[in-house]
Amino acid sequence: MSMSPPRSPLAPAAFPAMPPIAGVAVAGMACGLKPGGVKDLFLADLAPGTAIAGVLTRSKCPAATVDWCRQMLPGGRARAVVVNSGNANAFTGDRGQAAVARTVAAAAEVFGCPPEEIFVASTGVIGEPLPSDHIAGSLPALSTRVSADAWPTAAEAIMTTDTFPKGASRRAEIADAQVTLNGIAKGSGMIGPDMATMLAFVFTDAAIDPGVLQALVRRGSDRSFNCITVDGDTSTNDTVLLLATGKAEHPRIHDPKDPRLRDFTRQLDDLMIDLAQQIARDGEGAQKLVTIHVSGAASARAARRIGLSIGNSPLVKTAIAGEDANWGRIVMAVGKAGERAERDRLSIAFGGVEIARDGRVVAAYDEAPVSQHLRGREIEIAVDVGVGRGKATVWTCDLTHGYVDINADYRS
Amino acid sequence: MSMSPPRSPLAPAAFPAMPPIAGVAVAGMACGLKPGGVKDLFLADLAPGTAIAGVLTRSKCPAATVDWCRQMLPGGRARAVVVNSGNANAFTGDRGQAAVARTVAAAAEVFGCPPEEIFVASTGVIGEPLPSDHIAGSLPALSTRVSADAWPTAAEAIMTTDTFPKGASRRAEIADAQVTLNGIAKGSGMIGPDMATMLAFVFTDAAIDPGVLQALVRRGSDRSFNCITVDGDTSTNDTVLLLATGKAEHPRIHDPKDPRLRDFTRQLDDLMIDLAQQIARDGEGAQKLVTIHVSGAASARAARRIGLSIGNSPLVKTAIAGEDANWGRIVMAVGKAGERAERDRLSIAFGGVEIARDGRVVAAYDEAPVSQHLRGREIEIAVDVGVGRGKATVWTCDLTHGYVDINADYRS
Repeated sequence: MSMSPPRSPLAPAAFPAMPPIAGVAVAGMACGLKPGGVKDLFLADLAPGTAIAGVLTRSKCPAATVDWCRQMLPGGRARAVVVNSGNANAFTGDRGQAAVARTVAAAAEVFGCPPEEIFVASTGVIGEPLPSDHIAGSLPALSTRVSADAWPTAAEAIMTTDTFPKGASRRAEIADAQVTLNGIAKGSGMIGPDMATMLAFVFTDAAIDPGVLQALVRRGSDRSFNCITVDGDTSTNDTVLLLATGKAEHPRIHDPKDPRLRDFTRQLDDLMIDLAQQIARDGEGAQKLVTIHVSGAASARAARRIGLSIGNSPLVKTAIAGEDANWGRIVMAVGKAGERAERDRLSIAFGGVEIARDGRVVAAYDEAPVSQHLRGREIEIAVDVGVGRGKATVWTCDLTHGYVDINADYRS
Repeated sequence: MSMSPPRSPLAPAAFPAMPPIAGVAVAGMACGLKPGGVKDLFLADLAPGTAIAGVLTRSKCPAATVDWCRQMLPGGRARAVVVNSGNANAFTGDRGQAAVARTVAAAAEVFGCPPEEIFVASTGVIGEPLPSDHIAGSLPALSTRVSADAWPTAAEAIMTTDTFPKGASRRAEIADAQVTLNGIAKGSGMIGPDMATMLAFVFTDAAIDPGVLQALVRRGSDRSFNCITVDGDTSTNDTVLLLATGKAEHPRIHDPKDPRLRDFTRQLDDLMIDLAQQIARDGEGAQKLVTIHVSGAASARAARRIGLSIGNSPLVKTAIAGEDANWGRIVMAVGKAGERAERDRLSIAFGGVEIARDGRVVAAYDEAPVSQHLRGREIEIAVDVGVGRGKATVWTCDLTHGYVDINADYRS
């Protein structure tokens, strides 16, 4: 892009403190995919034996990197993760596969491991051949620069139109041992349901089998990355990887239902929700973070679909940009979600102020406190659809002139 | 709205000539629902015995008027159609139903017919009680003003954020008799698939049974109104009615497969596509009309879903607004449609210029003619997904600053 948009007004004050994790060293650098010496290559060096699990885009036209990860994830072991920004290596045909093979071979040589233990992800422009020379040529140098605390640099290296690097850290207990979780993520456009279009990498020193990790990362994604939407668009490259080095001093966990996982699961979910919210806060052009609570749906899944229907509606999102208490558009979005809703039992509240109950506006509805709420940065919408007990929370942002500015001229 | 946006640059030069139809008289007036004496009430006076069929929104939260039409359509007879703009009478609870009952009763009294023969539709703001006094009080006067040629006034009276009135007319032959079809429509926002959010009323003097009309209006809608999208939003009020007075001098048609219907069906489809395109041309903030041809899909239905996925993508629509040949976003939209597509057989052309073939950019791709095409008003995108023989054409418009302007401040 010719001009960087300013840092999102919804960004956190600072990048969080992220402690070292035994068995993980990271680095970021510029390898020439982005102009102007901007960082575009991320490397994670993982202790041998690190377990891996992940979820990938459901796009029918996935990037070559996604094909690679899908093929290698069942192996469950990772020695390194290589991520480039600036080029998505998607829709690049045979050359895309060759670029992945080249990158993987270079990394496998650097780390002296089988190619199956190298995981890759790409993000950026679709349809242009990836100059894999830049990546392969840079890996030997980058591998000497990894450190246990380079998380801010790492998070920067995976950014595209993001206006701030995204990180989160949590502590958890497993069987009286303390473990650490660090995650980084990127994404501000092409964010939609069914694997919200983004990259996220979560690292931990916990000792957990790949099959268990897979259950955890699926569950966590469904409550976090699959509950955010910026524009409803789903990318060719969505990738979430969860990596566990096993260096923590607790008995290895083999069963996803193991009660010793309770705190870890809670902290992992919380970390993933934190990262997902940061992505929504960095929605292209976002001026307001919108949290949508749906209750009374037929199931949690139905509630999420209704929430995403609201969160994806351009009419809802422009109304919020305009600070307009146009709750009729919420009704429209509930109606079009295709899930059961009782029109005459529908309730809607903005910022805790009840606007409609039992399918019509409340008596003596006063718009003033609602308008006041809409002038803030963080908007809360609660909808009860009057059918059952299903609940979900979804995060999105408003649709502003900034979104149009950024996306009408992304490539130039 | 405080300010009317200017007439769409994509609008037709003039409202079409619409000849009289035996058995149909129409009128439009201002009854006080919109401020400033703007027309907001439409009436069609139909010869007794007029046959009716229609398709209605699939929203789970439909307006009270939609509930009424759904209940009455099986009767198959219409004496009058009453449509107001300025208020959707949606999400208005018991009061909404009472307002419909009041309007219907007033019209039934004016025409001396059973309430079952009065059809109603509303469009405008959701969630505010409809002042049905204005409508009921105006119907006696309006009924004296109907004429066979007031089509432009009629089309104006149903507008909301439309920047031009929409009409279309066709002639057809049925068994050597000439029949006429006149249609009017409104809609420029909340336009989405599954009954694109709009109102359309098509009148003809043909003599066709209601059951046959129903097959025709369903088929025609699927090829026209259900193939347009402005913002993917589906309204609570979508209504398409097809009314046939039976005054033309040909034997009545009882069978949807009657070969004598061939020309009529073709002309009806063509008229509905014309109206649908006018709606896309009047998409809020539209600067470019985008026609998306999808081929090679598993079925016509799959092709339409892929086309709508492209047409609904904010990233595609902003790229077109920016005249940016960002065809990677087409790949993204094909991928997220959820229908079968062969990534490595995908072809994409803009304005007849092939950009990608067999899943990658063509050799010696020259962006110059594509950029030239994108600077025009009418954009053509062709995508072949390499799976089967299913085809569809979908119409949309670009996503511009104008859309944000209009929708961030609709109610004020």
